[in-house]
Amino acid sequence: MERSARLEAFLERTRPVMDLGRAAAVLGWDQNTYMPPGGAEARAEQTATLTGLVHERLVSDETVHALEALEEEVKGASPGSFAAGVARVARREIDQMRKLPGKLVSDLARASSLAQNAWVEARAQSRFDLFRPHLEHILDLTRQVAGHLGYQDHPYDALLDRFEPDMTSAQVDRLFDQLKARLVPLVEAIRPRLDRVSDAVLRQSFPRDGQFQLGNEALRAMGFDFQRGRLDTSAHPFTTSFSRNDVRITTRVDEQNLAYALYSTIHEGGHALYEQGIPEELERTPLGDIISLGLHESQSRLWENVVGRSREFWQFVLPAAQRIFPQQLGGASVEELYRAVNRVEPSFIRTEADEVTYNLHIFVRYELERDLLGGTLDVAGLPEAWNAKMEAYLGIRPPDDAKGVLQDIHWSQGSIGYFPTYTLGTVLAAQLFRQAEQEEPGLRDSIARGELVRLKEWLNRRVHAHGARYTLPEMTREITGRDLEAAPYLEYLEGKYRELYGL
Amino acid sequence: MERSARLEAFLERTRPVMDLGRAAAVLGWDQNTYMPPGGAEARAEQTATLTGLVHERLVSDETVHALEALEEEVKGASPGSFAAGVARVARREIDQMRKLPGKLVSDLARASSLAQNAWVEARAQSRFDLFRPHLEHILDLTRQVAGHLGYQDHPYDALLDRFEPDMTSAQVDRLFDQLKARLVPLVEAIRPRLDRVSDAVLRQSFPRDGQFQLGNEALRAMGFDFQRGRLDTSAHPFTTSFSRNDVRITTRVDEQNLAYALYSTIHEGGHALYEQGIPEELERTPLGDIISLGLHESQSRLWENVVGRSREFWQFVLPAAQRIFPQQLGGASVEELYRAVNRVEPSFIRTEADEVTYNLHIFVRYELERDLLGGTLDVAGLPEAWNAKMEAYLGIRPPDDAKGVLQDIHWSQGSIGYFPTYTLGTVLAAQLFRQAEQEEPGLRDSIARGELVRLKEWLNRRVHAHGARYTLPEMTREITGRDLEAAPYLEYLEGKYRELYGL
Repeated sequence: MERSARLEAFLERTRPVMDLGRAAAVLGWDQNTYMPPGGAEARAEQTATLTGLVHERLVSDETVHALEALEEEVKGASPGSFAAGVARVARREIDQMRKLPGKLVSDLARASSLAQNAWVEARAQSRFDLFRPHLEHILDLTRQVAGHLGYQDHPYDALLDRFEPDMTSAQVDRLFDQLKARLVPLVEAIRPRLDRVSDAVLRQSFPRDGQFQLGNEALRAMGFDFQRGRLDTSAHPFTTSFSRNDVRITTRVDEQNLAYALYSTIHEGGHALYEQGIPEELERTPLGDIISLGLHESQSRLWENVVGRSREFWQFVLPAAQRIFPQQLGGASVEELYRAVNRVEPSFIRTEADEVTYNLHIFVRYELERDLLGGTLDVAGLPEAWNAKMEAYLGIRPPDDAKGVLQDIHWSQGSIGYFPTYTLGTVLAAQLFRQAEQEEPGLRDSIARGELVRLKEWLNRRVHAHGARYTLPEMTREITGRDLEAAPYLEYLEGKYRELYGL
Repeated sequence: MERSARLEAFLERTRPVMDLGRAAAVLGWDQNTYMPPGGAEARAEQTATLTGLVHERLVSDETVHALEALEEEVKGASPGSFAAGVARVARREIDQMRKLPGKLVSDLARASSLAQNAWVEARAQSRFDLFRPHLEHILDLTRQVAGHLGYQDHPYDALLDRFEPDMTSAQVDRLFDQLKARLVPLVEAIRPRLDRVSDAVLRQSFPRDGQFQLGNEALRAMGFDFQRGRLDTSAHPFTTSFSRNDVRITTRVDEQNLAYALYSTIHEGGHALYEQGIPEELERTPLGDIISLGLHESQSRLWENVVGRSREFWQFVLPAAQRIFPQQLGGASVEELYRAVNRVEPSFIRTEADEVTYNLHIFVRYELERDLLGGTLDVAGLPEAWNAKMEAYLGIRPPDDAKGVLQDIHWSQGSIGYFPTYTLGTVLAAQLFRQAEQEEPGLRDSIARGELVRLKEWLNRRVHAHGARYTLPEMTREITGRDLEAAPYLEYLEGKYRELYGL
């Protein structure tokens, strides 16, 4: 690729910033996988220092001047060009950062590093009081962030924009309303028929090593490159990337449930394929960092649900699972597994929720976040508010905070405004798969034959190749020719579950 | 501790530098334990960026001005005071760094990160040609380093001083000559009697998990705090510290040899106790980073050899080893194990060498390093020069480069001038243990009862509590009242091996 002197000067200036961010990611990965408990305090300082330096360098006058020079140059260029894309993405991030005082950024990094460790402890003991002061501190700092970033209607908009550029909470509300109008009746229709689908086949004893092996085989079939990544375990599964050639994912194994580790591995694997699929020439540039979480989630949900919970996937994977667990699965059929992994039941833990109720978990969190930020709910009242919403939407009340308000890592990380992106990605996943099927006839048959790489390569070309060039709304139009819409998702979901539950 | 405004200002300025250094250490640990092969290139850039920033901040005018203000203040203070110690250690490091251009430092970091990965590959394939261009590049950069740092007699002095402050190669030569004069005859006297001691009991099949468990039990008995550290595996065992509360060590397991993992674990455990023993108030200050490698090595050698290869240690550890490996060790006696772990035999790999021949391996490396730097040897001739020296000192010729010149990670890390510190530490270990026995009557009996923590606590008080306040020569005088001397070590070694080999 031809690169002008001004582009090269700007990239030269920002490369160390990218390196610092990736170094902070290594520290985060270690913190959640291998770090001994004693390491928490020093790690918080180290992370705060790295994050503070990223901020300092990115908002510095030298960086801004280099960006202005680049912007001048690309004024006439095609908005789809590499240089124009770099300028636009960098401008967005730098403007956002320049609004935030360096001290606030490093305070938040330190607070969230400490809060993450408090959260692990609080969750283990199911004691919200251990986490409460940390969350209060984070919420206070986050409100300051929203204030500095600015917003029109609701402080939530300022925060959402950091995770999902180009989207507002009003847009989210519209989409979520459409979903609620169809999902609530669907769950209600299924509720009296819950016992029509059994997942007993999944709830046997599946030793850890075998589950890890099955997850590895699924990743390999998807085209995850183990020379450029690895799978570990952590309290909460996640994906992180230190470069396109070093992408880490984690899972958690429940020995009494085959589905948990398998589907969290496929889910994180979907994220990882995105990161491994970023083109080499975007490395260490602003276009190499995916900032739309909804886009990212569309990749994980596509693999986890649309692919992973299909009949075709089980046609392919069952023989491998039977080889690893002959006693437990020797007599099982594809249909039995397909039905089991699609069993609907209102449950406490979001990451273990079925496809149909999953979004209700998101609605709980989204609404609570908004209320906390808006000041109509305080942290002391959060556990009770959580439980009340769970009862209202899902008809069940968590027995303790570990199975309730303490289950997710996000708030401890300062990630407020993040949860809606899960549903945005889920909705987009269905829209993308519909497009893939149109462009790749016989795609489902390929999946049944274990040729999952065919879908991966389509995603490489159509999605991953763009890096961070487009926002979620833009990318959706670019690939499908339409705006993000609820219809493909609702049709997919209703078609599947009406058949499963004989509605 | 009372801290003046000037001291606090200087520490405030240097804390982020310490954090960056520790972050780079996390990246290095990951690179050697869990990083997938694809991650190498980006990791090299990230490490170079962090190292470059450490350099940039440490040599900046602001840092130097803060240091000058502190120096002004401590002029009259006791040299043993915290503030005076900080000023002295920081001045030493900053002066050294200011002599090095930032570009040279980051070039070296990048080159050594790439060289480490080339070394892993070269060693696996026993192909020196894969490593040669990397070593040539590193050597070239290292010569530039020596030139910038300056030296009187030999470029080696400039490099040695970075790992062992206050020592020159002339001092090393004097000590090494004393050792050679007694060790060569000792090895010669043992050579015709090699078969008097058998290590057959160690050379059975010892499954990996059991070896890991035994290493963990030894570490626990030593007082290693697993809440503040962990044990992993890597190609070459090492210790690294991200704070006194997060100290990582690694080992490597040979399933056909019980001694390798056990002794490398105890060795690294000795290093780790030093890092875990740094007082809390020295954290994130220049006094919290131990820069004398000889002092560090005295801790590992003390535990590995003086303690770990004693009869008393086996009185304590054999029951645990028999519990883990009942078939292999059920009928073994303390005397059989004591003799086995002290078997002398000229061999190829330094890290597997016995106590008596170990120093000969160091002499090989020390002399080759000096010749490479002095220009009387070039990298192309290194494998042959290595093999020739091995034959001259140990009477054996490596069958391939993996067992020869490619065995150590050090040169790939740019650590030239490092090897002599192993022997310095080994010599000091004996001098320290003699002192400990004088101050702690019945210490050997305590070890036999498994009360290894008594020695750890003595080391905490007498050695670790000082942090980086003293250099090796100073610390030796402070603790033993004498200069570093060969006599205690030679008496320990000759006494032990004359008895073992009936000389």
